[in-house]
Amino acid sequence: MKRKIRMGMVGGGPGAFIGAVHRIAANLDGLIELVCGCFSSHPEKSLATGRALFLPDDRIYASYQEMIEREAALPEGERMDFVSIVTPNHVHFGPAMLALEKGFHVVLDKPMTFTLDEALRLRDKVKETGKLFMLTHTYTAYPMVKEARERVRRGDLGKIRRIYVEYPQGWLYSDSEDKKGAWRVDPSRSGKAGCMGDIGTHAFNLAEYITGLRAVELCGELNTFVPGRSLDDDGAALIRYEGGAKGVLTASQIAVGVENGLNIRVYGEKGGLEWRQEEPNTMILRWPDRPMEIIRTSNGYMSGIAAWNTRVPAGHPEGYIEAFANLYRNFALALDAVLAGEEPDPRTLDFPSVEEGVRGMSFIEAIVSSGDTESKWIKIAN
Amino acid sequence: MKRKIRMGMVGGGPGAFIGAVHRIAANLDGLIELVCGCFSSHPEKSLATGRALFLPDDRIYASYQEMIEREAALPEGERMDFVSIVTPNHVHFGPAMLALEKGFHVVLDKPMTFTLDEALRLRDKVKETGKLFMLTHTYTAYPMVKEARERVRRGDLGKIRRIYVEYPQGWLYSDSEDKKGAWRVDPSRSGKAGCMGDIGTHAFNLAEYITGLRAVELCGELNTFVPGRSLDDDGAALIRYEGGAKGVLTASQIAVGVENGLNIRVYGEKGGLEWRQEEPNTMILRWPDRPMEIIRTSNGYMSGIAAWNTRVPAGHPEGYIEAFANLYRNFALALDAVLAGEEPDPRTLDFPSVEEGVRGMSFIEAIVSSGDTESKWIKIAN
Amino acid sequence: MKRKIRMGMVGGGPGAFIGAVHRIAANLDGLIELVCGCFSSHPEKSLATGRALFLPDDRIYASYQEMIEREAALPEGERMDFVSIVTPNHVHFGPAMLALEKGFHVVLDKPMTFTLDEALRLRDKVKETGKLFMLTHTYTAYPMVKEARERVRRGDLGKIRRIYVEYPQGWLYSDSEDKKGAWRVDPSRSGKAGCMGDIGTHAFNLAEYITGLRAVELCGELNTFVPGRSLDDDGAALIRYEGGAKGVLTASQIAVGVENGLNIRVYGEKGGLEWRQEEPNTMILRWPDRPMEIIRTSNGYMSGIAAWNTRVPAGHPEGYIEAFANLYRNFALALDAVLAGEEPDPRTLDFPSVEEGVRGMSFIEAIVSSGDTESKWIKIAN
Amino acid sequence: MKRKIRMGMVGGGPGAFIGAVHRIAANLDGLIELVCGCFSSHPEKSLATGRALFLPDDRIYASYQEMIEREAALPEGERMDFVSIVTPNHVHFGPAMLALEKGFHVVLDKPMTFTLDEALRLRDKVKETGKLFMLTHTYTAYPMVKEARERVRRGDLGKIRRIYVEYPQGWLYSDSEDKKGAWRVDPSRSGKAGCMGDIGTHAFNLAEYITGLRAVELCGELNTFVPGRSLDDDGAALIRYEGGAKGVLTASQIAVGVENGLNIRVYGEKGGLEWRQEEPNTMILRWPDRPMEIIRTSNGYMSGIAAWNTRVPAGHPEGYIEAFANLYRNFALALDAVLAGEEPDPRTLDFPSVEEGVRGMSFIEAIVSSGDTESKWIKIAN
Repeated sequence: MKRKIRMGMVGGGPGAFIGAVHRIAANLDGLIELVCGCFSSHPEKSLATGRALFLPDDRIYASYQEMIEREAALPEGERMDFVSIVTPNHVHFGPAMLALEKGFHVVLDKPMTFTLDEALRLRDKVKETGKLFMLTHTYTAYPMVKEARERVRRGDLGKIRRIYVEYPQGWLYSDSEDKKGAWRVDPSRSGKAGCMGDIGTHAFNLAEYITGLRAVELCGELNTFVPGRSLDDDGAALIRYEGGAKGVLTASQIAVGVENGLNIRVYGEKGGLEWRQEEPNTMILRWPDRPMEIIRTSNGYMSGIAAWNTRVPAGHPEGYIEAFANLYRNFALALDAVLAGEEPDPRTLDFPSVEEGVRGMSFIEAIVSSGDTESKWIKIAN
Repeated sequence: MKRKIRMGMVGGGPGAFIGAVHRIAANLDGLIELVCGCFSSHPEKSLATGRALFLPDDRIYASYQEMIEREAALPEGERMDFVSIVTPNHVHFGPAMLALEKGFHVVLDKPMTFTLDEALRLRDKVKETGKLFMLTHTYTAYPMVKEARERVRRGDLGKIRRIYVEYPQGWLYSDSEDKKGAWRVDPSRSGKAGCMGDIGTHAFNLAEYITGLRAVELCGELNTFVPGRSLDDDGAALIRYEGGAKGVLTASQIAVGVENGLNIRVYGEKGGLEWRQEEPNTMILRWPDRPMEIIRTSNGYMSGIAAWNTRVPAGHPEGYIEAFANLYRNFALALDAVLAGEEPDPRTLDFPSVEEGVRGMSFIEAIVSSGDTESKWIKIAN
Repeated sequence: MKRKIRMGMVGGGPGAFIGAVHRIAANLDGLIELVCGCFSSHPEKSLATGRALFLPDDRIYASYQEMIEREAALPEGERMDFVSIVTPNHVHFGPAMLALEKGFHVVLDKPMTFTLDEALRLRDKVKETGKLFMLTHTYTAYPMVKEARERVRRGDLGKIRRIYVEYPQGWLYSDSEDKKGAWRVDPSRSGKAGCMGDIGTHAFNLAEYITGLRAVELCGELNTFVPGRSLDDDGAALIRYEGGAKGVLTASQIAVGVENGLNIRVYGEKGGLEWRQEEPNTMILRWPDRPMEIIRTSNGYMSGIAAWNTRVPAGHPEGYIEAFANLYRNFALALDAVLAGEEPDPRTLDFPSVEEGVRGMSFIEAIVSSGDTESKWIKIAN
Repeated sequence: MKRKIRMGMVGGGPGAFIGAVHRIAANLDGLIELVCGCFSSHPEKSLATGRALFLPDDRIYASYQEMIEREAALPEGERMDFVSIVTPNHVHFGPAMLALEKGFHVVLDKPMTFTLDEALRLRDKVKETGKLFMLTHTYTAYPMVKEARERVRRGDLGKIRRIYVEYPQGWLYSDSEDKKGAWRVDPSRSGKAGCMGDIGTHAFNLAEYITGLRAVELCGELNTFVPGRSLDDDGAALIRYEGGAKGVLTASQIAVGVENGLNIRVYGEKGGLEWRQEEPNTMILRWPDRPMEIIRTSNGYMSGIAAWNTRVPAGHPEGYIEAFANLYRNFALALDAVLAGEEPDPRTLDFPSVEEGVRGMSFIEAIVSSGDTESKWIKIAN
């Protein structure tokens, strides 16, 4: 790389957890510099945030429209290369479409859009413009998740039979977040699913990513345990995958006391694997006739793609921020190649795309339908 | 107790894992003596087993009918007090009914019978005769499971919302057991369910035992992954409990490399608990606003019922055999009181009864029906 | 076996934890019957205990001398075959010597004697009489500890370099036990070491057992943290083993909140192993260039000697009582052969002998000396 | 902060693990910018590294002397604010002294110097110049380590009695690193201790940091297991702390298969704590009469100082890089205040100082002496 990649940000103002994480992740490897942003729909908040990030006032914008228009008008050596959109779900589609139209590459938080229809339109726009597009499904950026996928792909587990993927959390066990007006529990900002949109999509994506299998139909139930809440705070589904594998997906935000318990277990004809996000550098491999193995990141026996996404020696734990930084590092390296008119290293393109975004919205569509019907199996269409 | 309780055994011949465990469990506390048995339908095998157990030849029988008849004819100070039936499922009902009719108390392995109809008839017979009847659902005899139930009962967790109960095993991941003719994979000896009858019933029972909630309907799917197998070797169900709690139950015998992974997680409005059979002396308690606690058997903070079912100080692990022995010890103490015409200590009556047996058979009936239909929810009738 | 082996017991009266455990362990496999006992130095307590164990009054004795004399006078088909001595340390030597002299085989709790001198004399007596003698170092009877020794013996780990063995407990963190007059904290009953005699000896024995290496010298420090206590309640030592391996041994009874944390880690030139008593069915194997392995009891890959000491399938946890019962089962099987004039199966002779008892007393001697001196290295003499 | 803090770097050229980590740590929070460096004693390597880090050629230097001189000559708004020195041990003292003399603040890797004498002289220089000085003992920057110190400080554990601190690693189990000429095994670059200098100092520092107790004397042994190696690759020591607490410290680089196993256990009169670096977001608290607690970073019950050093919500694991970044973030914030002539927030000054550096060198001095003598106890002098 000859220079740092230039990032603009939409969202991520005061108190926004995920925006701050995006910035840390983009900083970490020293490959990206934040050059501009519209951090809030309140201009004064946007300005304050931008200044605290050492941005000059003329690169701090009051609306995403203004930002995209004015950045597009800057000379090539100065304007942002890509925009990172870290707003609530209902403000994903607008800035993403506009940025693509104005020639910017895009990073977008998940779930991709507010509706499946928006997702399909965004997919078309990405294809039409040919811009790089990354959806920040962080959990698949852990080196051990990449190792899991690699092991399945090369056949270590044999044909996959059984998938258990779970995403329990406890932080919404009472209505205190609802009273604070958190957007994740508000259908006008979150979309038609609550828990399933926020974290069920991660679980769904993780299972498809690791196994390489496409879910074809599901039978589920959504629950709202906290009185007065509008959206689901819990749910479960039986899932049928192509080729005959069977899955159970659960997601809950009322599993009181559980922090961020995403985990997956996959069993094939020849072996099994088990991974837990809260201890991400460890994976259990199970075999029928020999001892279970504990594999750990940064060891010599790890695959190339896992090593590529690792920074420190074995025993020096890497975590959520490093996984997030893997997304940004790979995106920056791929974008650097694209900007130079070169073919990106395939390892750098291993980030979630607009297709994963469409899958997530299709999953939401299916599970919400399933929760509303007495029909047993609902297709996951797109 | 003035004397040891006298046990007869039906089943448990050469190579029978569970029969040997029953005998060890009955031996452990020195309260029960084995006085007779019909250990196999092959008279010579029965004789060899009985002799190896130091029984005199005249108390080793060639058929359960012969045993029950002849024991009934012995004087009261000599004949067995109860019979323990440890045969394959299709030979549960016959000896149990006969023993009850002839005045013997009965211990029976699970699942209780071959069909739900047999279960209902056996329940009637137990009620009619007033004999003590114990079903050996071992897992609910662990002290920590009793603690779990106690904590739910006294309201530590608040109203229960969410139950996850899982029973993964891997030993039937290939067809090697089928080829050996193991009875668990043979519908003529096992009944209409395979995995769900063998271990799904344990999971179902564990959840109802701990939460005190009755499952009312389920939506499930049974799978047979190993080619050529007649019965299910895997399955999952969404379950609705009375009062609005929701459950997910999974059971699998093709989770390759997993040993005996029964586990349960229960979350209520105020707290959660998590228990794994493979590390049975430990339970995790989760709370919304304070650190999770790890409780361990034999500590002073444990409830009375857990302490009653514990033998050694904290840190001296107790396991499966001790849990099994808890069943026999409680049964022996209760039976001693009954034989003396006294009221048993309530703690000794805390063992699975014929009602749990009927519940298990109802669960099998429902999950098999669910697997065969496109209707979403199936009632668990009895 | 043609008949059960007949056991007498010295000690194990009301409230004695370890005596009850010895009886359970002896019961478990149905190979041993308790035929007589002197359970307390208070005759009425002895009688009450014996009756509760269903013994006839004429086999319940008021002193160990009376018991041994009168049993020796019984006809061969009736008298006890061996005596199990489960008294406090200062009453080990007397009954053991007398029993050997009168022709009985002996089981004795650890540490073997009150002084090293007694230990040496007892060793001579065992050799002289040729009777079977077992010291109940329970922890080496776990199947996984046998596996560990086997793996070291066959060279999987290469030449051993480094041994860490720890035995932390917390139950003596305050003086409440001292006030109750517990014998373990009383030098007139426990011997010259407290913590090191009670549990340090277990740790010392475990390390020598697994590695097959003899400790030659140590540099240690004993501590008494609880005010008013006469004996050590904590200590640590650097240990030098034959062949150049180095060890660190720690034992503590003031590690508040720790239950029974005996654990060992051994590293050789080619691999390492780690085992914790509180999760006894699991062992970690570490390798330089491939994933660590978790081995678990009852799996097909376990060695023959581990399988011999296991009763139930993988995933059905076995614990402390089963380990204790392994001692008794092996002793009973060996004794049966001896009584029949046959050579015992070598697997049955794998129990701690009088030599281990002497080693333990030598260790106590050395560590107490080390704590009293400014000399750095103290030989472990015998 | 009005602007980013400007960092220069000495060391961290091609293949240097720790230099890259320093840069990542400095990048992470976006508070520091790298403005210059001398990355290697080979000018062409220094140039290549600097260019890859997007530095202009005129800020890439061929020697640390040149860098410090020329940076000092730059105008205030341009020159570096501090220098980060990440060279092997024998090149710590020179650049640190020069930088301080020329008015720069200093970040230095551990162990602080090549000899104790250098350490004392460096301490004097820091005092004399009044510059900010940070030693990068990373492990005490984990939020959970800060929590541990806080809990000890506020008396939760009562008076401390027993400290176990261990630092096992396995990567030097064979001579392959020696053959590669790694500086850590070379006395001319590493200093008089190998394992004890590299990682023993971390363990020593961690124990003093958490307990707030000063070690006063030790009795230790150093070992060199790998043939041909000049420095210790393993060792252990008994340690006596002020106030009567007793410690055992072990460090090993031949614990084959162990990754980076730093861990500590501390027991006081009222409670205990246990922490493992490889799972850094978790700490076990043990109590005599109530359940052990598992505390986890980012929960509401954590202390203010832990929260200050945390970036993401509970269940999103933070690791080694985040701990390292805590050092740099706190240093940058403190330096910003110093540069503005203000009093730094005390929370930002919670990083290892030149005093910790002197303590580490005193520890090395004492343990090496102890290894060479038959005297039992060696004072830790400074």
